[in-house]
Amino acid sequence: MNAQPRRICLVGVGLIAGSLGLALRRAGAVTEVVGLGRRSEPLARARELGAVDRYSLDPAEALAGSDLVVLGVPLGAIRGVMAQLRPWLTDDTVLTDVGSAKGCVVGDVKAALGHFPTRFVPGHPIAGTEHSGVEAAFATLFQGRRVILTPTADTSGDATATVQWMWECVGAEVITMSVEHHDRMLAITSHLPHLLAFGLVDMLSRAPDHEEILRYAAGGFRDFTRIASSDPVMWRDICLGNREAVLDALAGYRRDLEALAELVEAADADGLEAVFRSAKQTRDAHLHWFER
Amino acid sequence: MNAQPRRICLVGVGLIAGSLGLALRRAGAVTEVVGLGRRSEPLARARELGAVDRYSLDPAEALAGSDLVVLGVPLGAIRGVMAQLRPWLTDDTVLTDVGSAKGCVVGDVKAALGHFPTRFVPGHPIAGTEHSGVEAAFATLFQGRRVILTPTADTSGDATATVQWMWECVGAEVITMSVEHHDRMLAITSHLPHLLAFGLVDMLSRAPDHEEILRYAAGGFRDFTRIASSDPVMWRDICLGNREAVLDALAGYRRDLEALAELVEAADADGLEAVFRSAKQTRDAHLHWFER
Repeated sequence: MNAQPRRICLVGVGLIAGSLGLALRRAGAVTEVVGLGRRSEPLARARELGAVDRYSLDPAEALAGSDLVVLGVPLGAIRGVMAQLRPWLTDDTVLTDVGSAKGCVVGDVKAALGHFPTRFVPGHPIAGTEHSGVEAAFATLFQGRRVILTPTADTSGDATATVQWMWECVGAEVITMSVEHHDRMLAITSHLPHLLAFGLVDMLSRAPDHEEILRYAAGGFRDFTRIASSDPVMWRDICLGNREAVLDALAGYRRDLEALAELVEAADADGLEAVFRSAKQTRDAHLHWFER
Repeated sequence: MNAQPRRICLVGVGLIAGSLGLALRRAGAVTEVVGLGRRSEPLARARELGAVDRYSLDPAEALAGSDLVVLGVPLGAIRGVMAQLRPWLTDDTVLTDVGSAKGCVVGDVKAALGHFPTRFVPGHPIAGTEHSGVEAAFATLFQGRRVILTPTADTSGDATATVQWMWECVGAEVITMSVEHHDRMLAITSHLPHLLAFGLVDMLSRAPDHEEILRYAAGGFRDFTRIASSDPVMWRDICLGNREAVLDALAGYRRDLEALAELVEAADADGLEAVFRSAKQTRDAHLHWFER
């Protein structure tokens, strides 16, 4: 049983892994948090901010004695990073990641290692902001938030318990579900909205008078498009990583917009009001889930 | 010159007119704010909250001696209200409204009166929340916000000056533009986003497992859909009132979503990143306009 690791290695120290390091160190949960990355600058900054105890650019040095390795890199980097770490992983090393799509992580890890390790527990903290990088990290990011773990049929129960323990140390509630279920749900509540917000602002940016149009945008527009200030590379990777579920969600939404356009075209007041009323009722009834 | 009216009549006391009444009374801008409506309950509440000095259900009584009449009713009620007020309007009465679309106001007022009065100045304060009703009103709602006035070619300059004075009294910045320009701009930054947010939550509400899906929604979803908690009747009226511009904006957006779907389908990483990057750059560069 490896439920309480002593040393945790964070691979990449962005908003999520940086916040995790801050929170684990504040909680005194582990003996040491080690940062691993390609460039020393963000790692040095992570140490200054208190997100890691020490850091290294050398996988051998960083992984030596680490019981738990958290991949905090973008989805598009998982495959390359796993190939680099491969020589230094032991049978005891528990691995997890923080990516927003899970099927592609399983696929990329398999592609890098030739198999999917029984001690790799895919994970996704439902937390974040539109900002990125360790400068945006804060220790309370996971307080009261949910973390989804998607162990496969072969995943070790001990490894899952270790990763669950880590997230509970930083105040999160852990839920377990299948990779497919995770990817379909998140496509609807997260990946599709990002695509829609990026799309709207992009459309606007191509209008010759977009400077003036934006001058008369109000709070509704600001909030609707907040996620369009998110990291373009990260969201490119998520949309492509969860490509099929995102395409399904987008296709369903495009059919709905066609129906809405027909209601407006036909000036169907009752039909339009029914759609708006159903949406308001659903959102108001579930506000307690996501206003926490 | 009628630039400083002594008595203002608010027709309807919802979020916008209620906040206007609170702010005008706090500023000591006028001698009296009179509320007019169909039901005494919200009017009595408006008086309790300090949004009006007195109120009446009788247009003759409420309009007597009022220099300026502000229509705070939903767009769908403008025509009926103007027909009811008609017998008590004098040549000196300055009128304005607060509707989110302006072409339909001009049309409905013409339909009710047989002409569009030279002392009617269509207006739209770019302010509000997803809440409605006088309970949600607050005196600082217009502080630092923009108010668009859309006088027609025949509108009296004095009347426009009076309405501008009123909005400046409550801390707003007043801009003047054509009805058509207003309606096209707001279709993109406000009406379309509302339609998109209502549409997404409605789609979700029809998924059998929407309770569970919403449980894993995060801050991004909360903000993206905040406007889907807006008043369904008000937004039905706005979408139909500004029908042509809304249909144009929606058609443009649907073409863009088709292009985005093709990028995802083709796994075109560079194309997708370019769209996301352009959107982020545009939003970040203009944040100062709408974060105030």
